[in-house]
Amino acid sequence: MAPDGERRARVALSFLAKPGDLVLGAALRARTATEVLGLVTGADANGDALLAGEAEDTALRGALPRWRDRLGDIPSTARLAAWQDSGLRLIVPGDSEWPTQLNDLGDTRPLLLWLHGSADLRLTCVNSVAIVGSRAATGYGQHVAIEMAATLAEKGTAAVSGGAYGIDASAHRGAMAAGGDTVAVLAGGLSFGYPQGNRALFTAVAGQGVLVSECPPDARPTRPGFLVRNRIIAALSRGTVVVEAALRSGALNSARHARELCRPVMAVPGPVTSEYSAGCHELIRDYGAMLVTCASDVLGHVGLAGDGVGPAGPRSGPATPRDLLDPVSVTVLEEVPVRGGRGPASIAVRAGVDLDTALRCLGELAAAGFIERCDRGWRTRRLS
Amino acid sequence: MAPDGERRARVALSFLAKPGDLVLGAALRARTATEVLGLVTGADANGDALLAGEAEDTALRGALPRWRDRLGDIPSTARLAAWQDSGLRLIVPGDSEWPTQLNDLGDTRPLLLWLHGSADLRLTCVNSVAIVGSRAATGYGQHVAIEMAATLAEKGTAAVSGGAYGIDASAHRGAMAAGGDTVAVLAGGLSFGYPQGNRALFTAVAGQGVLVSECPPDARPTRPGFLVRNRIIAALSRGTVVVEAALRSGALNSARHARELCRPVMAVPGPVTSEYSAGCHELIRDYGAMLVTCASDVLGHVGLAGDGVGPAGPRSGPATPRDLLDPVSVTVLEEVPVRGGRGPASIAVRAGVDLDTALRCLGELAAAGFIERCDRGWRTRRLS
Repeated sequence: MAPDGERRARVALSFLAKPGDLVLGAALRARTATEVLGLVTGADANGDALLAGEAEDTALRGALPRWRDRLGDIPSTARLAAWQDSGLRLIVPGDSEWPTQLNDLGDTRPLLLWLHGSADLRLTCVNSVAIVGSRAATGYGQHVAIEMAATLAEKGTAAVSGGAYGIDASAHRGAMAAGGDTVAVLAGGLSFGYPQGNRALFTAVAGQGVLVSECPPDARPTRPGFLVRNRIIAALSRGTVVVEAALRSGALNSARHARELCRPVMAVPGPVTSEYSAGCHELIRDYGAMLVTCASDVLGHVGLAGDGVGPAGPRSGPATPRDLLDPVSVTVLEEVPVRGGRGPASIAVRAGVDLDTALRCLGELAAAGFIERCDRGWRTRRLS
Repeated sequence: MAPDGERRARVALSFLAKPGDLVLGAALRARTATEVLGLVTGADANGDALLAGEAEDTALRGALPRWRDRLGDIPSTARLAAWQDSGLRLIVPGDSEWPTQLNDLGDTRPLLLWLHGSADLRLTCVNSVAIVGSRAATGYGQHVAIEMAATLAEKGTAAVSGGAYGIDASAHRGAMAAGGDTVAVLAGGLSFGYPQGNRALFTAVAGQGVLVSECPPDARPTRPGFLVRNRIIAALSRGTVVVEAALRSGALNSARHARELCRPVMAVPGPVTSEYSAGCHELIRDYGAMLVTCASDVLGHVGLAGDGVGPAGPRSGPATPRDLLDPVSVTVLEEVPVRGGRGPASIAVRAGVDLDTALRCLGELAAAGFIERCDRGWRTRRLS
């Protein structure tokens, strides 16, 4: 539990500086929130003397007037209490519900988080994946987001997303439909509840998961605010899946944040004829994002493949087109070992065919790329 | 031009051994075709003495009886002449039309190729890409194959594919619709013309491109023959694109051959809900195939991006979601250099905003991941 004074100072500062303010972030590396607030209010008589020399202090000195201009925005104790009475709670670094992975954000770590909902944010996010994408999603994208979030929920992995229409909403709906936890990080305040059309969804999320915002509860979201918010989605989760995104979609910004945090970036492919998958394809093709087709793929990449079925696990069918071989060739192929090697005569005996037939099949199998010669006869070759 | 004796010997051997026969391939490394044929017919009195000791000679000695059994299959000179009168021509290594890239196949290099069509095979394949996929293609896959082959044709790159329904046929149709060359490599003989339903297509290909087969003209295709044939498609072209393929599709075998030949393997993504794209997704996800969405992507990967528009070239939109920024932030962002760095005061002057506004925008842009601090102020960051 963080000390009360620090908590109050962080709350005050959150009404003065914008989310992700790097100058404030740097200042909080060197000073307590109480000290920084003292510099803003002028309560610290030595403030100006302290702020000389260092480049960071120069930046801080430059920011102080801006923050001072907003001192009137700090709400009264009664106002804060009213928000908390309405069901919101407030966490700061050091609280037991604070997700420590947010510390990876360095100087852009949120000052505090407003929460609303029944789930514990820290526990929920331990096993969570961000599912993001375009507001202007297609039926295909919404279907994939719902299925993926639902399957992840069934395997005990929560969804983290924004509060937008389209993929964000589908991810929350899918997770909740499967009885799972879901985390919606809003770009505006929790009481403001943007967009209005999703308020019923937000009520449902609060009932089954948790709503999150670093903004004052009555704050209206700003355009850059959505992009700044995306760092929280990326930092809370173990990895980010972009389900559908056009080339300039804001969802790609979430992928960028995840990448900078060294979290896996994944993208779901779609028709190349759909502009709403073009951003996903660009991520895979040009930025090293991993192609994922299902929840199992995702769990494999974030290290949560508890059931052993992930990218490295068994699949519904091998890539080798054995079905196209005639039955005798299949029988012969089955007697060719993966390692070591075996001679044609031994293969013939095991396969129950004569040597000529075995030799013919081995030749065809080799020409077709299934097997190769080695010191000890023949062995199978693998595509990988 | 290959010597007549060698040509005749290769023709004879092509009726005795199956396509891609490794024993024959190895034998032809050490001996001329005339010498090998002499061993089969027994014309070489020292044959048995020659075949002692070496492992490869042991294999050759084992194969001779099989080949001798088929000596009666060698057609008469009149029969060969009739095929050639019907429009077929025959090339062997050393001929001017022989595509030398087939030599990369080593011991599985075709003995010879039967051709039918107006195009020169070697010249056509210099700039060519294999476009392959499932017979059971969807409308989506056929559309993509047609568009890709047509665009490649417009840029002077020929299509190489098989003769099957679905993706193969679509690739040929797309190339021809754009007035380009196309190469169809059949698994059976050119006179047999399998499948029957594509005979009109084959006639069109012969008129505008070239039909290819290593099998005797009247040979019926065999199931393993399709897989053996795939190595020729992979070897003729600069790279292989799998447009649509189910998990066990034979098209994946073409990808395997291309990979073994160190040619780029590319795959077109599709809906994850389509089983006909599952093989493509597996290639990208698990086997390192490159995701391609259009002809430009393909040309970039095979080193034919003549117009500078490939995976490394300009795209229709950057991945950065600048559209989501407010106009002032965009103005400020435009003054942040890619290299070197620039101070806030200088950025403010250039952007025509006051220092406070510049500092606010720079903070937001940094928090949103667009820019970063450096020794000399601020610079933009890149996703890659």
